[in-house]
Amino acid sequence: MRKATSIITIIFLLANIKGLAQAPSSDSLAKKHQQMMDIIMTKPKYPIKTIGVYLYDGYQTLDAMGPYETLAGLSGVKVFFIAKHKGGVRNQRGMTVQVDTSIDKVSSLDILVIPGGAAETYMQTQDTAVVNWIKRIDKTTTYTTSVCTGAWILGATGLLQGKNATTNWYRAEERLKTYGATFQESRWVQDGKYWTSAGVTAGIDMSLAIINDLMGEKYTQSVMLNLEYDPHPPIKGGSLKNTQPLVKDMMTEMYDMGMQPLFKKYDKN
Amino acid sequence: MRKATSIITIIFLLANIKGLAQAPSSDSLAKKHQQMMDIIMTKPKYPIKTIGVYLYDGYQTLDAMGPYETLAGLSGVKVFFIAKHKGGVRNQRGMTVQVDTSIDKVSSLDILVIPGGAAETYMQTQDTAVVNWIKRIDKTTTYTTSVCTGAWILGATGLLQGKNATTNWYRAEERLKTYGATFQESRWVQDGKYWTSAGVTAGIDMSLAIINDLMGEKYTQSVMLNLEYDPHPPIKGGSLKNTQPLVKDMMTEMYDMGMQPLFKKYDKN
Repeated sequence: MRKATSIITIIFLLANIKGLAQAPSSDSLAKKHQQMMDIIMTKPKYPIKTIGVYLYDGYQTLDAMGPYETLAGLSGVKVFFIAKHKGGVRNQRGMTVQVDTSIDKVSSLDILVIPGGAAETYMQTQDTAVVNWIKRIDKTTTYTTSVCTGAWILGATGLLQGKNATTNWYRAEERLKTYGATFQESRWVQDGKYWTSAGVTAGIDMSLAIINDLMGEKYTQSVMLNLEYDPHPPIKGGSLKNTQPLVKDMMTEMYDMGMQPLFKKYDKN
Repeated sequence: MRKATSIITIIFLLANIKGLAQAPSSDSLAKKHQQMMDIIMTKPKYPIKTIGVYLYDGYQTLDAMGPYETLAGLSGVKVFFIAKHKGGVRNQRGMTVQVDTSIDKVSSLDILVIPGGAAETYMQTQDTAVVNWIKRIDKTTTYTTSVCTGAWILGATGLLQGKNATTNWYRAEERLKTYGATFQESRWVQDGKYWTSAGVTAGIDMSLAIINDLMGEKYTQSVMLNLEYDPHPPIKGGSLKNTQPLVKDMMTEMYDMGMQPLFKKYDKN
């Protein structure tokens, strides 16, 4: 696994800013560089070294890539993918990413990220090896997180029992109830060590909230500028409350067609 | 190349909604399903069938994956990656994606997407084979687009000469001036067939703006709900104007350390 660029960049930056701070310069410049150092060297609320994103055939691209890219903004972390078996893992469109680590090789993580998807995500809830691995890993994590319908997989472990959580908008309350969790309508929800996000792109917001929690606002702003994350969608939308009823109904019917047969077949009663 | 899920989903949806519309049901339900059909069947402003995302070692993950996932929301499109040579292509952190198509095999596209990155992106501007391929492809496109510092590569082709454009916040005005373009401070800029976006996550906003341009608001809302794209960053930030001066200066110094030596060595005077 190649080391995260952020580590190299930060070390490089540190070395240079130290040099600048020691070089003959105005007091104000030296003070400014010291302040920059203070941001970079902020002691995290908890030490985070390893962040694993669990991939499986059929995961939704941005569910995984949003947190993968955003959480890599934490300094000194190793962010990597884990799958049931190492090798190529397909996203929901057939894009193949090479995964070098498998669940039998990973016995602890500081942060676990579980991305969502559609039918193939639901089928992960039925995979005992995966569900048991998440339960084991959860014992070692500082934070266990899910994005979108990744909450279904996390829910299947029983770890969301009695917790507040969120998930993809699609039948969110009903789905979380299945796993004993209470749906909160929010981009992300933290309940103890469990962080869950709404659908797809909400994983970016949740990841930034985690960074903000660990490192504070100045550090988070540096990560946000690095991602130029000052979003401006062209039109209003993207959540149930901001979507026209007709579009909302259409999307629900479409999801129902794909998912209801699976819910009927596998949901425990 | 596996067909985009969206096509399959839409066909599935169509078949079912047609069935529902014809089934004995209330007039209001039949009318509603007809309205849903009208959204799905919206005739695009221009026919778009092929969308190619150009990948190269060192591209920024979300620069590519944002538009890849968002533009796949257009119905009936094939979205795929293209690289100089087929095989594994590394993002800026070492994640390897399998790319099945190379520039010598692709002679036309309806939409070309050029993602950005850092030093390795700048070096693409010096690769004559790549620059010439983009010029050739551009003759066939409906829209030629760039995300983030992908505008540097697009700029190096000369195609942004005399155009309004945007790019990553880092020395944006100066960089675009190098390529004869005028910087506009905006999440995305359209000038004729050229669409350019600000850094990284702005590629999602630009892609939605393209869908909105092609398909109208109802269709775009369906794509936005599919991505649950109603962003709420935890704090203000992500653009120069929303970032504290100290953080902005720190990030600029950091980027300068990586990039200025390359600009000095390769920029044409």
